[in-house]
Amino acid sequence: MAHYKLILAYDGTQYHGFQRQANRQTIQAVFEEALRKIGWQGRAVMPSGRTDSGVHALGQVVSFNFDWNHPDETLRAALNAFLPADISVRQVAQAHPGFHPRYDALSRTYRYQLYQAQSRDPLVDRYAWRLSQEPDVERMNQAAALLMGEHDFRGFGKALREDGTTIRRIEQAEWHRDGDLLVFYITGNAFLYHMVRRIVHVLVLVGQGKQDLEIVKRGLETGSTGIVDLAPARGLTLTRVRYPEDE
Amino acid sequence: MAHYKLILAYDGTQYHGFQRQANRQTIQAVFEEALRKIGWQGRAVMPSGRTDSGVHALGQVVSFNFDWNHPDETLRAALNAFLPADISVRQVAQAHPGFHPRYDALSRTYRYQLYQAQSRDPLVDRYAWRLSQEPDVERMNQAAALLMGEHDFRGFGKALREDGTTIRRIEQAEWHRDGDLLVFYITGNAFLYHMVRRIVHVLVLVGQGKQDLEIVKRGLETGSTGIVDLAPARGLTLTRVRYPEDE
Repeated sequence: MAHYKLILAYDGTQYHGFQRQANRQTIQAVFEEALRKIGWQGRAVMPSGRTDSGVHALGQVVSFNFDWNHPDETLRAALNAFLPADISVRQVAQAHPGFHPRYDALSRTYRYQLYQAQSRDPLVDRYAWRLSQEPDVERMNQAAALLMGEHDFRGFGKALREDGTTIRRIEQAEWHRDGDLLVFYITGNAFLYHMVRRIVHVLVLVGQGKQDLEIVKRGLETGSTGIVDLAPARGLTLTRVRYPEDE
Repeated sequence: MAHYKLILAYDGTQYHGFQRQANRQTIQAVFEEALRKIGWQGRAVMPSGRTDSGVHALGQVVSFNFDWNHPDETLRAALNAFLPADISVRQVAQAHPGFHPRYDALSRTYRYQLYQAQSRDPLVDRYAWRLSQEPDVERMNQAAALLMGEHDFRGFGKALREDGTTIRRIEQAEWHRDGDLLVFYITGNAFLYHMVRRIVHVLVLVGQGKQDLEIVKRGLETGSTGIVDLAPARGLTLTRVRYPEDE
């Protein structure tokens, strides 16, 4: 029985997030169904973390035990043959037996995409948040810079367990322009529930001049920004999870 | 009664092309339904040309007469409120009464997107053709250059009417790299049925070393390349239609 580590990509538009739920289409359910079709009899695969309903991934990592007596490349091809067009296995590798995609992760990187337009661009809108008012990138980057380092982020998200710590370490948080898109990359050791989407919403308010940089400082110092809105899921993609063995 | 000229964008994935057909979901049917909801009583809108099943658009132009007694901007907002997420009105303008989106067009520009990967990238695959073997961009551009100017393109497509001419004039045909994508822009006074997708298929074969440049020359000289395959619709987008008044 080998332990496999797979990199999954998916378009989350049609799914109720990663994690299996009764009577709901989820990435996990569809992926496990494909695994079962090629003979897997396990109970559940383990992800690096959940993604919310509508959130996409280019670098979700899952692991599972499987008695597959063929090359890794064949496992990828077999799974992709059974997966729908919006889920894809990008890489297959064997991991050491103790590998755990969530506990072993050193960091996660998310991407968030925005565009400004008076009407939807249907070829962009699936993977980006449309704003009617253009935000100022420099102001957004000034606000983002305040997030760098170790902080208590309870003003920007919730711990999944009630007694969980809300301290996280951010090592990258930067916007850049890519054609018509504004693209944000944020990397941290881990993220609270809804944290990236709440951060993006606050940064956009700052970029549009509707809030000052102060709101970010206040959020970090007092544990509340007063803003409860989230940036839409459609713009968010889990792009990479980094492990010690990747170094 | 004013004559309107609209620019439409759509994700063609879920549609059987632009043109209305009985019992099939088409862009035209859905667009006309939205128009009727705001009081339009015309028979049919006129497009710059059809797009095939699965083909996308950023710059499709349609025109119609409509007794709309409000600002153009309101017409755009009202239509977008009734259109599904995959169809969008990007611009509204009033045209002179004799404006005809098809006959008046000086040129059409199409974009075709490719990417090379061993497995699908679900965030790219909706709008690009995945190849397992990377084509050589320089070779594709050498082949594309042969298409420039006026030629009989009957080896690369069909006239929609049996007695129609198959002579077309190409003024742009070039590939460039954009991140992981290979992007082709082709502009011509008009295109035969399936012409862009057939050209792309032939250029890819040349780029992959499976055919020589000769195949393009032969296609233009003898009216047949011997290749009947088409590049998939998913990679193709009608990006712009140019009119005398745009100059």
